[in-house]
Amino acid sequence: MNSFGRIFRVEIFGESHGESVGIIIDGCPAGIDLSEQDFTEDLLRRRSGGKGTTERIEKDIPNIKSGVYKNRTTGSPIMIEFINENKLSDDYEQFRTVPRPGQTDFVSSVKYKGFNDHRGGGHFSARVTVGMVAAGVVAKKILKNIDFKSRIIEIGGSSDFQKVLDKAIKEGDSLGGVIECSVYNLPAGIGEPFFYSLESVISQLVFSIPSVKAIEFGEGFVSAKMKGSDYNDVLIDISGRTISNNCGGITGGLSNGNQILFRAAFRPPSSIMKKQQSLNLKTGKPEDLLIRGRHDVCPVLRASVIVEAAAAVALCDLMLINKTNINKC
Amino acid sequence: MNSFGRIFRVEIFGESHGESVGIIIDGCPAGIDLSEQDFTEDLLRRRSGGKGTTERIEKDIPNIKSGVYKNRTTGSPIMIEFINENKLSDDYEQFRTVPRPGQTDFVSSVKYKGFNDHRGGGHFSARVTVGMVAAGVVAKKILKNIDFKSRIIEIGGSSDFQKVLDKAIKEGDSLGGVIECSVYNLPAGIGEPFFYSLESVISQLVFSIPSVKAIEFGEGFVSAKMKGSDYNDVLIDISGRTISNNCGGITGGLSNGNQILFRAAFRPPSSIMKKQQSLNLKTGKPEDLLIRGRHDVCPVLRASVIVEAAAAVALCDLMLINKTNINKC
Amino acid sequence: MNSFGRIFRVEIFGESHGESVGIIIDGCPAGIDLSEQDFTEDLLRRRSGGKGTTERIEKDIPNIKSGVYKNRTTGSPIMIEFINENKLSDDYEQFRTVPRPGQTDFVSSVKYKGFNDHRGGGHFSARVTVGMVAAGVVAKKILKNIDFKSRIIEIGGSSDFQKVLDKAIKEGDSLGGVIECSVYNLPAGIGEPFFYSLESVISQLVFSIPSVKAIEFGEGFVSAKMKGSDYNDVLIDISGRTISNNCGGITGGLSNGNQILFRAAFRPPSSIMKKQQSLNLKTGKPEDLLIRGRHDVCPVLRASVIVEAAAAVALCDLMLINKTNINKC
Amino acid sequence: MNSFGRIFRVEIFGESHGESVGIIIDGCPAGIDLSEQDFTEDLLRRRSGGKGTTERIEKDIPNIKSGVYKNRTTGSPIMIEFINENKLSDDYEQFRTVPRPGQTDFVSSVKYKGFNDHRGGGHFSARVTVGMVAAGVVAKKILKNIDFKSRIIEIGGSSDFQKVLDKAIKEGDSLGGVIECSVYNLPAGIGEPFFYSLESVISQLVFSIPSVKAIEFGEGFVSAKMKGSDYNDVLIDISGRTISNNCGGITGGLSNGNQILFRAAFRPPSSIMKKQQSLNLKTGKPEDLLIRGRHDVCPVLRASVIVEAAAAVALCDLMLINKTNINKC
Repeated sequence: MNSFGRIFRVEIFGESHGESVGIIIDGCPAGIDLSEQDFTEDLLRRRSGGKGTTERIEKDIPNIKSGVYKNRTTGSPIMIEFINENKLSDDYEQFRTVPRPGQTDFVSSVKYKGFNDHRGGGHFSARVTVGMVAAGVVAKKILKNIDFKSRIIEIGGSSDFQKVLDKAIKEGDSLGGVIECSVYNLPAGIGEPFFYSLESVISQLVFSIPSVKAIEFGEGFVSAKMKGSDYNDVLIDISGRTISNNCGGITGGLSNGNQILFRAAFRPPSSIMKKQQSLNLKTGKPEDLLIRGRHDVCPVLRASVIVEAAAAVALCDLMLINKTNINKC
Repeated sequence: MNSFGRIFRVEIFGESHGESVGIIIDGCPAGIDLSEQDFTEDLLRRRSGGKGTTERIEKDIPNIKSGVYKNRTTGSPIMIEFINENKLSDDYEQFRTVPRPGQTDFVSSVKYKGFNDHRGGGHFSARVTVGMVAAGVVAKKILKNIDFKSRIIEIGGSSDFQKVLDKAIKEGDSLGGVIECSVYNLPAGIGEPFFYSLESVISQLVFSIPSVKAIEFGEGFVSAKMKGSDYNDVLIDISGRTISNNCGGITGGLSNGNQILFRAAFRPPSSIMKKQQSLNLKTGKPEDLLIRGRHDVCPVLRASVIVEAAAAVALCDLMLINKTNINKC
Repeated sequence: MNSFGRIFRVEIFGESHGESVGIIIDGCPAGIDLSEQDFTEDLLRRRSGGKGTTERIEKDIPNIKSGVYKNRTTGSPIMIEFINENKLSDDYEQFRTVPRPGQTDFVSSVKYKGFNDHRGGGHFSARVTVGMVAAGVVAKKILKNIDFKSRIIEIGGSSDFQKVLDKAIKEGDSLGGVIECSVYNLPAGIGEPFFYSLESVISQLVFSIPSVKAIEFGEGFVSAKMKGSDYNDVLIDISGRTISNNCGGITGGLSNGNQILFRAAFRPPSSIMKKQQSLNLKTGKPEDLLIRGRHDVCPVLRASVIVEAAAAVALCDLMLINKTNINKC
Repeated sequence: MNSFGRIFRVEIFGESHGESVGIIIDGCPAGIDLSEQDFTEDLLRRRSGGKGTTERIEKDIPNIKSGVYKNRTTGSPIMIEFINENKLSDDYEQFRTVPRPGQTDFVSSVKYKGFNDHRGGGHFSARVTVGMVAAGVVAKKILKNIDFKSRIIEIGGSSDFQKVLDKAIKEGDSLGGVIECSVYNLPAGIGEPFFYSLESVISQLVFSIPSVKAIEFGEGFVSAKMKGSDYNDVLIDISGRTISNNCGGITGGLSNGNQILFRAAFRPPSSIMKKQQSLNLKTGKPEDLLIRGRHDVCPVLRASVIVEAAAAVALCDLMLINKTNINKC
């Protein structure tokens, strides 16, 4: 189930410590300008290196292996591969026996009867989101008049990120946070009832991103506390513009012509530098665990562009599907 | 896009004021006991009639038209139809010109160039969720050892529902709320990376339910404020049981052997009895609107079973897919 | 797997002797004229009553239950139901023990562990193709400038059908045949590499029709005997027109602007009036079998329109997909 | 639409003269032994080098980039890449203006508005079938008790292949042929009504192979000439074995426990060494064309294993789906 989409389809592959990670983008219209430089900006936004991010720094060079000819998409599948160059896999063997709390060590081993590649989380690693970012770049080029903006609005419960970040680094702890994503200039009527509503598709993709545990559109959980007379967004022109935007630009699962707005909550990463309790699966007894390896203290710092990519991929598929809604062949 | 699922597939149809609504359930294993009585309990939970629910009361008799023979599923598609018997469609014509704030009148008309059936919201109406509930009943029968529980935890921002409900009815206003859903006895390892994680699939289905604007798993938005050392759920036995359950029973998109827990937020319904401002699409000028018709003051009162059904359909598909993960043919 | 299609999607349901058979058509563009009269012509072409067809005559009234409002498609799923009115189910119980040679009695029972509805072949019956014909009608309306023609070119190995048909009826035997289908005015470039080529999609649908055992496009099996210098169709104008049409209008899986041409071979039906050898599954011993019931001597007589419908559904999906190949959103 | 499958899913990529071709295999169960040596035999069967095959010889080394760890499948997507090492792309530019008869030059240019990679046929080239063969190897490993055999039964209309081949080479012409494929030990009941019948799925995949123009199961076109009394295969034991096998081991779209048998017809390749007439798309006038480049005189010589792979991929998906038909979760 590593594929998504009806028309604009992506298929993701790779493991954290395998040879490479990447993506196939199928169903991309022909004739879109595309070169490796187009990926630079978004890949840099996802890259580690800053304070609170992992010491594992990958060059993240997008190798476009197919589907592009003379810097134009050809209509054939676009395979983009990123070589994993910076791997240290020795650290992981012990977690087969004593799984890291909150990590996929235990569940992936149960699911795949121990055949999973557990190094660095394997296919469950956030490393594979580099392919999602690449797909987002292509999606945004297709959706050229639509603008995507995402930003961190909270880290560790605070909007003063530096302070909580310094503290967590010092304590060997980790932090989650909240990312807010906006989409501008999306025309009204995008989204497909019943199971492919705008919220359904965006949430499906956003929850594919490791560590996301919640999403809300517009006023979200707050809207559940409002009365209808306060909540209803009042139309002010025939383009669909409304006075307020409590619904986050989505009515009945369709875009309504206003700014799309949603927030995604990331839990803190499991790999911390503090001693933790776990269980030895062989002895069945509790055992203390000290995790080494290189890990993000706060992956949210790198995740804005991933959330944005998820939204772009979702909307690209829906926009292409929408072309088939009305006109006869 | 009115279909969902890879193996356990549902296809939903019908409009609020059309002849009927219903669902086809395809990919249901053969040999499951199933008769019309099996639907009674869940359909009653969704039914209107109580305080704060619409005066439109439908009998909701499930007509099983195919796929069941001698009270057993046959392996062929199960078509279940519910006749719409209680319709009053006169009230809706005006909303073509002056759309109701927050309703789908405007967006569905834009999307389908005015060809949509607008009566009672047409295919966008929560009326079609009766099919979802029916599919949930079948899913639960397949998942016979797994238990689903859902309950309202908040209405209109309060846990003292009666008070806020009485007030809203008196004022002609409407209310949203929050539903919490739990799933017990789900084995560890259910969910499919990358795009078909447990959160992805449940959220896709839950956001198909009209009025849902947010979802969170486990501690959800609160988890974004926690430190890793507080968040990590510590394993206490080899079945996967953990001391805490901050992650809502889902690690890396897979079930981890603990209780699955999520909450869905419903916005208040748009149709209220108070005078509201809207826009006349012909004149382009603001116009006051007073909505008649029969509407739920608080649809959350009827929605627990719908959320539960969404979870059951999601898990049924994932459980069946999971059978193909390991064993050779 | 009773669904087909990416954009123009159909989901078929029902059994030969169940309450009804039918289809949901999802992804139909809004605004297409559609009323029950539109189905009359094609349904009549499929109807029994003529020489060599079954005595079971069904009225085949298409009940459009959703997706159409004021004789226009709304963009929502179109559910069309046909009530089974003329059933005689007593005759089938014996085939549980002594399966009819060539029929699905044995395989469907193995597949579904005996839970299948075996009456009249259940869901395996050609009865369910009435839904396919209905979907074909809708597809043809969407593809309004494209013409479909299909005709019987051979029955029982002969092009003099009356003679072989009279003989088979007299002998209590049955006959197969070959249907040729042509599609005119399909623009060049329709079809999707790699797995959704024009031949792939048409053949997938045509082989869904009960009794089809072979298909060939253009010169088909004869083309395998030709040299390239004889086979190659030479272009004569920039619209794509070629002198010959050995490839049946399909090059590289794409339409090339010429007439699409294919032939489908139907085996003779299994239910004959002659005594046949079979096996008693309880005793494990051979047993003679004499089949009663009402059956087509030659279903090919009714199948032209079904083949045509399969082609129309295939092309409708591909034509709608093709809209997304080039233009930016 | 470069993906196939519900559970065992493949996604194919690459162009004839691009950097690489390959495939992602998703949904492969974990724990299957797999190493690069496993591919050698089948890849050699597809390889050129013999009389009548192209002078372009590729090493076809399968680079497994993901989804395999310590020579076992992990349950994650398996990406296999084949580098294109032997390319001569100068020869193709002229075909933009004067398309080769019978080739995809014209149709692919129409479809993709000239943005397609036309070198060596681009993504339409039979070069991409190397990925299909790789997927077939994996499928056969999963289906370890099922045997696949395929063989050429006719080339250029003759079963004395050497003679017709020598003649065609001498004349600079090309040849088609027929491949017969058998599958042994497939249990009864495999295949999914309605649109995913055994014939539907096999034919969809076989028609994805470039140059295939016809397929028949069992007696195929001959069965259309038979009477029911001759055609019906008589059951002789409770395993499903029948005296004759006119239906090619498939009844009602399901395997019936006997040998699966089908034949696929390949047209002759378009690229011949003889002078041919074509059209100059700029002048709109006829123009003679002499094709250089390296081409197969008779690709059928290399295609047995490709047909076999198509059948294996089809059956692997259906066998995995079949696991979900009966047992409760």
